[in-house]
Amino acid sequence: MPLPLGEFELIQAIREEFQPLPGSQRHIGIGDDAAVIEGNLLITTDALSDGVHFLSEKIDFIDLGYKAMAVNASDIAAMGGYPTNVLLTLGLNQNITPEKISRLLEGFQQARKAFPFELIGGDTIHCETFFLSITMTGKPFGQPILRNGAKKGDFIYATGAIGDSGIGLNQMLGKMKHPLLDPEYFVQRHYRPVPRIDVIRTIVQNYEVHSCIDISDGLLADLGHIAEESGCGYFIEAGEIPISRKRIGPDFDKDPLYFTEFALGGGEDYELIIVSPETIDCETVRLETGTPLTPIGRITEDGFQVRFREKDLDLGKIRKGFRHF
Amino acid sequence: MPLPLGEFELIQAIREEFQPLPGSQRHIGIGDDAAVIEGNLLITTDALSDGVHFLSEKIDFIDLGYKAMAVNASDIAAMGGYPTNVLLTLGLNQNITPEKISRLLEGFQQARKAFPFELIGGDTIHCETFFLSITMTGKPFGQPILRNGAKKGDFIYATGAIGDSGIGLNQMLGKMKHPLLDPEYFVQRHYRPVPRIDVIRTIVQNYEVHSCIDISDGLLADLGHIAEESGCGYFIEAGEIPISRKRIGPDFDKDPLYFTEFALGGGEDYELIIVSPETIDCETVRLETGTPLTPIGRITEDGFQVRFREKDLDLGKIRKGFRHF
Repeated sequence: MPLPLGEFELIQAIREEFQPLPGSQRHIGIGDDAAVIEGNLLITTDALSDGVHFLSEKIDFIDLGYKAMAVNASDIAAMGGYPTNVLLTLGLNQNITPEKISRLLEGFQQARKAFPFELIGGDTIHCETFFLSITMTGKPFGQPILRNGAKKGDFIYATGAIGDSGIGLNQMLGKMKHPLLDPEYFVQRHYRPVPRIDVIRTIVQNYEVHSCIDISDGLLADLGHIAEESGCGYFIEAGEIPISRKRIGPDFDKDPLYFTEFALGGGEDYELIIVSPETIDCETVRLETGTPLTPIGRITEDGFQVRFREKDLDLGKIRKGFRHF
Repeated sequence: MPLPLGEFELIQAIREEFQPLPGSQRHIGIGDDAAVIEGNLLITTDALSDGVHFLSEKIDFIDLGYKAMAVNASDIAAMGGYPTNVLLTLGLNQNITPEKISRLLEGFQQARKAFPFELIGGDTIHCETFFLSITMTGKPFGQPILRNGAKKGDFIYATGAIGDSGIGLNQMLGKMKHPLLDPEYFVQRHYRPVPRIDVIRTIVQNYEVHSCIDISDGLLADLGHIAEESGCGYFIEAGEIPISRKRIGPDFDKDPLYFTEFALGGGEDYELIIVSPETIDCETVRLETGTPLTPIGRITEDGFQVRFREKDLDLGKIRKGFRHF
C-alpha cells in the first residue's frame, strides 16, 4: 500500500522534529521497543487495524484480543521487563457485534492469565475501520535493555523457533510451496505468539545482556535495528537458527533454504533476539522456562553476513522483512 | 451511529470483567479522566477518527494536531496535574499527504509550546480510516484529584467560558438559529481548546479541591459523572454559568435559554469543573492565570436541579450531552 512516507522515514522525521525540550531529562524513547520514563517505567504502544493486520471477517476475536496484548507484552519483554498496566483504545463500527466484543474481551482475559496486567483505562470511539490501540506499561527485571548496547564479539541468541508465524500466515493464504506435516501448529503460532518474559527474566538474573529486540519485522530486519543503533554488524549462521523442522516434516530437507528464508525475513514471530557477551547455558534456560534458547551468530564490527551451508546468502531479497505499510 | 453497545455500557462491561488481579495494588483506573499508577503518575489516552471527530477533507491539520494533544492535556489537568510525555499512534491512509502530516506535526509543536511535553514513542500503521490515538502521562501538582470526592455543600466552579465549542461547531455546520457577533471566535474555541493547567495549579496550591473533571461530554453530563462517582447531587444556577455573551452579541438577550443550552449540553469545551469546600477568590485566580473562574452552583445530597431565571429547567432534553458514538 503506497503511503507518502514509509513507517521508518516518518518515525525518523518525527524523531528529528521532536528533540527533547531544553532542560528536560534525556529520555530513552523513539526507536526502541518501549520508552523508559521515570527512571524505570517501561511504556509501549501498538495498534492493529482491520484489513491490514487482520481481517475482522475471518479472525477469531479471541485470538485477536490475545495477540493484541501479546505483541505489546513482547515489546516489554524485549526491554528486559514484565507488563504491569494496559490502556485499551477501541475504534468500533457497526460490524463489531456484541458477540465479537465479548470474544475480544475473552482474548484479553486469556492474555492476562498468560502474563498478568491490570486494565486501567482507555477510550472507545466510533471509527469506520475497526482498530485497536493498546498502551502497555511494564517494569524491568534489572536495568532496561536497550537496542544500542551490542558490542563486537557479543553472542547472538534466539528464543523459541523462528519463522513459524510467517509459515502459518502463508499456509492460511494458500501460498506455501511445500506441504506441512502440522499446518495447524504454524497457524496457531501466527495467532498466539508467546511473549518471552520468563526467558528474559532468567537471563537477566544470571547473565549480562547488552541488547535485546523482539522479532516483529523479521529476524534480519530486527537484527539490523540492533546493528544500526549499536553501530556494529552481525554474522549469522543460518543453519543454526531454530526452525520447527519436525513440524514442517520431510519437505524441509527437499528445500531447506525456502524454509530458512521464513526465519530470516518473515515477521511477527515475537521471539527475542538476545545479545550477550557471555556464553549462556541454553540447556538450563530451557529447563527453567520451557523455552529453547539457541546461539545463532555473533556481533561484528560492521557488515551483515549470513552463512548457510558454507555459502554466504544474498541478503538483498531477504533482509527487507515486513514493512508494516 | 448505532453501535451494539454504547460507550458507557461498554466501559461498564469492561470495568466489571477486568477487576484488579488478586494481590495487586488497587489502582485508580477505568472511569476517571486519567489513571494513577506508581503512586503519582497520571496516564490517559484519547483517540480521534476521521468522519466522527473531524473531517480530514475540511479540518486544518495544524488545528487537528493541536487539539489532539490539548484534549489529552485537559484530562491530565482534570486530575490536578501537568503533562510530561506522549506516545503518538497514527493510522494513516493514502489521502493523508506529506503536506498534511507536516501540518499535523506543526500542530503538535504548537501544542508543545503551549503546554510542554516530550514525544517519547508511538506507532504508525496503515488504516483505511485515518485516526490518531494519543497516550499522555503527567504528574499531579499535589495529590491526584478524583471524580469521586465531591461532598454535600461543596462549591462548584467553572473555568473560562462554557458552550463556546458547541456554538462554534454549530456555526460551522450552519445550524445556529441566531447570528453571532464574532463567529470566528467560536470556531477557534472549537478547534483550539486550552487545557487549564495553570488554573488547576493555582487552585491546588491554595485551596482544598474535592473533585474535578473537564467538560468533554457537556457540563451537565460531566457534572453527572462527578455526582455518580461521588454519590451526590448538584444544584446549578444556569444564569451564573460563564457564557461568551459579548461575542454572541445582541441576540443573546433575544433568546438567552437557547445559548445557555449550549453551555449545559454542548461538549468539547475542555474547561474544568472544580469542586471545592472553600470559597475560592476567583478574581485572584483570574489575575494570576488570565482565566476567569466562576462559581456556578453547589453539590447537594442527591438530585439534579438547574435553575434559570427563577425556574427549574427540564433536564431531560439537555442532560444527555454529546455521546461520542
